[in-house]
Amino acid sequence: MRNVIEKTYDSLDAATLERDETLFHSANGYLGVRAVFEEGYGEIRARSVRGAYINGVYDIVPMPQAEPLFGLVDRKQTIVNLAEVQDIKFFSFGHPIAPSGRYSRKLDLGSGISSRSFSIELPSGAMVEAVFERLCPFTRKGSFMIRVRIESDRTIAIDAETTHHCKVTNLADASDPRLASVVHSFLVQDEPFFTSDGVSVCRSTTKESGIRVVSAVLDRIVSASPARAVEDGKAVNRFSLESGSVIFERYVAFSDSRTSSDPERDAILAVLDDSRKGFEAAVADQKKYLANFWERTGLSLEGDDELETALRFNLFELLQSVGKDGLSHLAAKGLSGEGYEGHYFWDTEMYVQPIFTYIMPELSRSLLEYRYSILDKARENASLLGHRKGALFPWRTIDGTECSGFFPAGTAQYHIDGAVAYAIIEYYRMTGDKEFMLDKGLEMLLEISRLWMDLGVFTKRGFELHDVTGPDEYTCIVNNNFYTNASAKFDLAETAKLVREILPSISEKEEAELREFERASASMFLPHDEELGIDLQDDSFIYKKKLDLARIPASDHPMLLHYHPLFLYRHQVLKQADAVLAELLYPQFSDRATMIRSYGYYEAITTHDSSLSKCVYALQAFALGDIEKGYSYFSSSNEIDLEDTHGNTRDGIHTANMGGGYLAFVKGIGGFRVGEKGVSFSPILPEGWRSYSFSVMYKSNRITLKVGKDGAVLSAERPLVVTVHGRDVPIGKEPIVVEI
Amino acid sequence: MRNVIEKTYDSLDAATLERDETLFHSANGYLGVRAVFEEGYGEIRARSVRGAYINGVYDIVPMPQAEPLFGLVDRKQTIVNLAEVQDIKFFSFGHPIAPSGRYSRKLDLGSGISSRSFSIELPSGAMVEAVFERLCPFTRKGSFMIRVRIESDRTIAIDAETTHHCKVTNLADASDPRLASVVHSFLVQDEPFFTSDGVSVCRSTTKESGIRVVSAVLDRIVSASPARAVEDGKAVNRFSLESGSVIFERYVAFSDSRTSSDPERDAILAVLDDSRKGFEAAVADQKKYLANFWERTGLSLEGDDELETALRFNLFELLQSVGKDGLSHLAAKGLSGEGYEGHYFWDTEMYVQPIFTYIMPELSRSLLEYRYSILDKARENASLLGHRKGALFPWRTIDGTECSGFFPAGTAQYHIDGAVAYAIIEYYRMTGDKEFMLDKGLEMLLEISRLWMDLGVFTKRGFELHDVTGPDEYTCIVNNNFYTNASAKFDLAETAKLVREILPSISEKEEAELREFERASASMFLPHDEELGIDLQDDSFIYKKKLDLARIPASDHPMLLHYHPLFLYRHQVLKQADAVLAELLYPQFSDRATMIRSYGYYEAITTHDSSLSKCVYALQAFALGDIEKGYSYFSSSNEIDLEDTHGNTRDGIHTANMGGGYLAFVKGIGGFRVGEKGVSFSPILPEGWRSYSFSVMYKSNRITLKVGKDGAVLSAERPLVVTVHGRDVPIGKEPIVVEI
Repeated sequence: MRNVIEKTYDSLDAATLERDETLFHSANGYLGVRAVFEEGYGEIRARSVRGAYINGVYDIVPMPQAEPLFGLVDRKQTIVNLAEVQDIKFFSFGHPIAPSGRYSRKLDLGSGISSRSFSIELPSGAMVEAVFERLCPFTRKGSFMIRVRIESDRTIAIDAETTHHCKVTNLADASDPRLASVVHSFLVQDEPFFTSDGVSVCRSTTKESGIRVVSAVLDRIVSASPARAVEDGKAVNRFSLESGSVIFERYVAFSDSRTSSDPERDAILAVLDDSRKGFEAAVADQKKYLANFWERTGLSLEGDDELETALRFNLFELLQSVGKDGLSHLAAKGLSGEGYEGHYFWDTEMYVQPIFTYIMPELSRSLLEYRYSILDKARENASLLGHRKGALFPWRTIDGTECSGFFPAGTAQYHIDGAVAYAIIEYYRMTGDKEFMLDKGLEMLLEISRLWMDLGVFTKRGFELHDVTGPDEYTCIVNNNFYTNASAKFDLAETAKLVREILPSISEKEEAELREFERASASMFLPHDEELGIDLQDDSFIYKKKLDLARIPASDHPMLLHYHPLFLYRHQVLKQADAVLAELLYPQFSDRATMIRSYGYYEAITTHDSSLSKCVYALQAFALGDIEKGYSYFSSSNEIDLEDTHGNTRDGIHTANMGGGYLAFVKGIGGFRVGEKGVSFSPILPEGWRSYSFSVMYKSNRITLKVGKDGAVLSAERPLVVTVHGRDVPIGKEPIVVEI
Repeated sequence: MRNVIEKTYDSLDAATLERDETLFHSANGYLGVRAVFEEGYGEIRARSVRGAYINGVYDIVPMPQAEPLFGLVDRKQTIVNLAEVQDIKFFSFGHPIAPSGRYSRKLDLGSGISSRSFSIELPSGAMVEAVFERLCPFTRKGSFMIRVRIESDRTIAIDAETTHHCKVTNLADASDPRLASVVHSFLVQDEPFFTSDGVSVCRSTTKESGIRVVSAVLDRIVSASPARAVEDGKAVNRFSLESGSVIFERYVAFSDSRTSSDPERDAILAVLDDSRKGFEAAVADQKKYLANFWERTGLSLEGDDELETALRFNLFELLQSVGKDGLSHLAAKGLSGEGYEGHYFWDTEMYVQPIFTYIMPELSRSLLEYRYSILDKARENASLLGHRKGALFPWRTIDGTECSGFFPAGTAQYHIDGAVAYAIIEYYRMTGDKEFMLDKGLEMLLEISRLWMDLGVFTKRGFELHDVTGPDEYTCIVNNNFYTNASAKFDLAETAKLVREILPSISEKEEAELREFERASASMFLPHDEELGIDLQDDSFIYKKKLDLARIPASDHPMLLHYHPLFLYRHQVLKQADAVLAELLYPQFSDRATMIRSYGYYEAITTHDSSLSKCVYALQAFALGDIEKGYSYFSSSNEIDLEDTHGNTRDGIHTANMGGGYLAFVKGIGGFRVGEKGVSFSPILPEGWRSYSFSVMYKSNRITLKVGKDGAVLSAERPLVVTVHGRDVPIGKEPIVVEI
C-alpha cells in the first residue's frame, strides 16, 4: 500500500507553505484544521490562513446586488474561521525552535497523522530534532490533537508559549470571484477562561446566524506545569523546563449549538476524555477506522505507484471532507480552506457521492438526508422563482438557502435538481434501501419531477426546458441544454418507475401525475445536429463564433478571470464538460457514434478551466474505448492538488476532481456501472499496470474485482450475478476468473 | 394655443406634492430645479426631493458586484443634488405664510414660468395672497430665479428667512432598482460666504469625480435690507418689514468646472447680471425664446384640447431637458428628478432626438456631439467586452463609461449602437450636414459598423448576432434579436452608402471593409416564422411558455418588481415593444401582412411596463392603418406623467414617452417620414379633430403641414418636392392643398 504522502523541502517559500496548509490539513467531516506551522513562518511573507472550521457552521454576510432585481440573493452564508487552536511556539534561550531550511511534511493515510519534522542547530551548538504530529479523529467528531516531540543531543532550556483564542478572521480577496471579497469578523466572543483542570475555553457566537461555538484546549507536557493566564482575550500557557527530550500534547475539542444542546460542557468533557485516553489511543482508533475504510475500498494498484498514491490521497481527503451527521454536506473545498466560502454545490452529488454510494452507502445516505433537511427551503426557492410547484435545490448553500450572487451562472443551473435525483436513484440502485425511499427519497424525486414539469413546455419539438444554465458556465441561460434535458428526461421516467415500484398503492391523482412525468420524459427534446452527427450543447451553441483555443495564452486561463462573460457566452468555448457529461451519465440517450463525434467536437473547444472537467473527459474516453486519451486525462486530473496545477490549492482541495479521479479508476478503468437490474464491469488493464483491484458494496454484499494479466477475478460475500463486458457472470465467495 | 398646465387643489397631500415637484420643475437643459414648496410642507410627510441638478455633473459611487466577474462594472456615475437654493420662508408674527388648504400650480408654456399661488387668512384677520413664480431661462444657462409676491388687504408685519447651502443629499430607495439604493453625500463643501454685493456663494467639489460647482444667490426685497449671516454652513438672509405688498426676488446662478475655467467668478457675475436686469427682463427673454420655439414646431390642434396641451407639455419638457452644449445629453428623467440616477440611455436617440432633428437640428447635432465626445470610451468599452475593433456605446452613462450593474439587462443591449447610428443617419437625411459627417458622423458610423462585424458570425443561416439583449428586458441575452439584427442590417448598409457618398476618396482597404459591411448587411439573418407569418423577437422566443396576462393582477405591474428575472425570461411576455419597434423603424425588412400579424401577436403579450412601449404601439397602429387603436395608445401614452399612470412621476418625467407621444403625432397622425431621397407625409385626420398642423425643418427649409376637413395644406420656405400618400407633390411658399 502506497499510503504516505511525503515531501521534503530544502527551504521555506511562501507558495509551498500556502499550498501545504491545504494539502496536509486534518479533518474528519465535522471539524477541519489547516496545516499551518504552529509557530508561524518567521520572515516568510506567506498568505497564511490559520483556519479551523466546522462543517455546517456559517455566518451570513450581506451581498448587495449592483442592481437589486426582484428575487436576487442579497445575503449569503459563509464558512467561518472559528478559532486559533494551533498557536504553539518553542524557544531555547529565546531562539525559536523552528525550521529555517530543510524540513519534511508527511501525511500518513494509514494512521491519518499529518506530521512535520526538522532538525536545527541551536546557537549553543545543541542539535535539536522536532516532530509535530496532528490528528482529527474520525471517531471523535469535535476533536483535534497535536503532539510535538523535541529531542536534543544534550539537555537544553526549553520554553513554550501557546495560545488559544477566537480573535480570528476569514480570508478575503476582492480580485477573485471564487473567494469572499470583504474581510469580516464573524464572531462575538466571550472572555476565554480556564477550568480548574487547566482547560482553556473560548466561546463565541456567529454574529448573524447566531450559532454558538465552543472550543476547549488542554496543553500538556508531562514533566512541566504551565503558567496559565488570559491576556488580551487569549488563553495563554507558558512552560519552562530543562530537558533533552520533551513531549508536548495539545488536545482540542469543538462543539456547536447546531449539534449539541450544551456545547460548552461537551467540548470540555471531550477534551478531558481525549487527554485522559492520550494521543496514542487516538492514533490506535484512527488506524483501526482507516484500516476498515481501506479494506472497504478494496483498492490496490500495481504498476503506477504515483497514481495509486494519488487515488488513496483522493479517497482519504474525501473521507476527511464528507459530513457524516445528516446535517451537513460536503463543501467544494471540503474543510481544507475557504475557497467558495464553504458552499455545497452539485459537485458532491455528481463527482463525489457515487464513491460513498459504492463504498460506504451509510455516508451517501447521510448526504441525502442533508438534502432532505433543506427540501422545504428548496420548495421556497422554486416558489421565489415563480414556480407553482416542485422544489429547486439551491445552486450553492450551507443552510439550504441560495447563495448565488450572479444568478445566470448560479440559480439558473437547474441541473442541480438532476444531480440530487441522480444521487438518490443511484443510492437506491446500490442499496435497495426502500425505507429511505419511502421516508425521504421518493418525496424528493417527486418534488424534483414536479419542478421539471413546471419548468418545461410542450412544443411541436417536444418537451422543452428554457432559460437554464448547464454545467458549462461559459454559456449561460440557454434553451434546451442537452445535459439538463437529459437529466430531466431520466429523472421523470425513473421517478414514475420508482414510485410505482416502491409505493404500496397509488391514487388516481398520483397516477395521472406519473403519466404526465412519463409523457414529458418520452417527448423530451434533446438537441441533436444531423449534419455534424453530434448532440448539441443547447439550441444555439453550434451557431456561435468559433474561438481558436491555441491562440489563448496560458496566462489567460482560467478565462473567466480574463474575459467578459459576454465574450465567453458568444464563443464556442467550454469551461468544462457539458454534453459530454450527459453522454457519460445518460448513454442510453445517444448512440456510440454520436458520442464519439460529440467527444471530438467538444474536446477541441474545452479549456478545462474548471477542475470538474478532465475527469469527465477521462471517464468518457475510457467508456468510448480511447484508453490512451482516457489515461492521459486521468493522470492529469490527479495532479490538480498534489501538483497544484490550477494554482489555487492554497484555497482548498478540489473535492469534485478528487471524486472524479477515483470514479475514473472505478468506472473508467474498472468499467463499473450500476443499473436498474444490477451491477456490471467492463475492466481494462492499462499498459504498464500489473494489477489493480477495488470493491463495491451492492445491496450489503461486497463485490471485489481484481484485474491482472490473467484476466478479471471477481468475488462477492454472497452469491449474485454480475455483468462483465456484457455477459452475465454468477459470482460468490470463491473468486471467479473472467477473461477481459 | 393651449399653453398652460394648471392644477388647483383643495388640500395638501403627499402624493400630489411629490408628483408636482417633478411636473412643475424648471430647467433649461443645463440646470434643473425641482418644484418644491419653498417653505416646505409643514405637517405633511411627503418624500420631498429638494433637488437642483446640472446636466453632466455627477459623482461616482461604488457599485460592488455580488460576484465580481471579469469586466463587470463596479462603480457608477450618479447625478448629484448640488445645493439648496429654494429655501425661502415668510412669516407674519411667527405665523407661516404657506397654504394650508386650497392652492394652485401653473406652468405657462409661453413664458416658461412655473408658479404657485394661494390665499390665507392670518390670525389677525388679514387676508394674504401669495404668488411664487420660478424660471430657468433658456438663454442664461446657469440661472434660476424665484419671484414671490405677497399682497395683503392691510399692512402687516412680514419676516422672511432664506437660506442657501450645499448640505444636501441625494434620494435613495433600496427597494426600487430604478433608484439609487444608498444615501450618499457627494459634496465636499467650502464654507459659504457673502460678497460685498450681498451675493451668497456656496462652493463644493464632488468627492470622486472632482467637479467643482459653485452656486451664487442674491435675495432682494426692494423695500428692505436683509441681515446676512453664515450659520451652521448655510448662508442666511433675514428680512423684516411692514407692508401690504411685498415683492421678493431670488437670483440664482450655477457654474461648474466642466464648462467654466472660473466657476466662482462666472456664477457671481451671472447673478449680478441677472439681478441687475431683473425678473421681468428674464421673462421677456424667455417668452421670446419660447415664441420662436413654438413657431418652429408649427404645432396646432383643434378638436382635442387635452391632447394639444399634453403635446405642448411634452415638447416643453423635452426642451427643458435637452443638453445644449455638446458636453451633455438628455437623461431618462431630464433634469426633473433622480430616477435612473440621471443616466443617459438609448431612449434619447430613439424617442426624443428625432423631434429635435425635425424641429431644431442644432440641438440634435449637440446630442451627437456629446456621443462623439465619448467615442473613445465606447471603443474602450468594446475592447473590455473582448471586441477587437469597433465601439460600443455604454448602455447607461453620464461621462461615457458604462454604469450598468446587471450586464444582461444593460451592457448586453448592443442595440444602443443602432440607436446612435439611427440618430446620425436621420440627422444627416434631414440636414444634409456633410461637415458634421466628415468631422464626426462617419467616424461614429464606421466604428459602430465595425462593432457589428466583430459581434456577428456568418453561418449557413446568414450573418448572425448572438448573446445580446433587445429593447425588451423581459428577455435577456438572446440570439438574433430581430430588432438588433434589423438595426445592424440598416447601419451596415447605410454606413457603406454614406461613406461612399460623402468621402471624397476611398482607399482599397476602406473599400474592402465597406464590401464586408454590405455582405453582412445583405445576408443578415432576420428570424421569421413562416407558419405564424410573423417576425420573431429572437431565435427562441416563440418556443417559450405562454403567460395569460389577464391573470396577472394590476398590482403585479411592473412585473420586474414582482417576478424573478428567470420567470420573466422563460415566458412569452414583453415589457415593451421589441420586434414591433423594429418593424416601425425598419419597415423595409418586412411586408405589411407580416407587420400586421406581428403586431397582433406581440401586442397580446406586452405589459407596457416600460413607458417606452405604448407610444410605439400607437405609432405602428397608425402606420398599419388601425387609427382607433393608434389613437387609444396615443392618448394613454400622453397621460403617463400628467396623470402619473406609472405611479413614479415623483422620480422624474418620462422623457422617452414624451418624445414618443410627439412622434405619434408627427409620424403617426401626420405620417411624416424622412428617407434617403426626401420627406413624405401620409396624414390622417382623427375623428373629432377639426384641424392640426406641425412644421419640420428639412435641409434648412421649413415645411409646414396643416390638415383640416378639406385636406392637407403644405407649404415650404423654399420650393421642393415632398411625397404625400405616395405621390410626389411640389410645394413652396404658396400653400398647396392635397386631398387625404
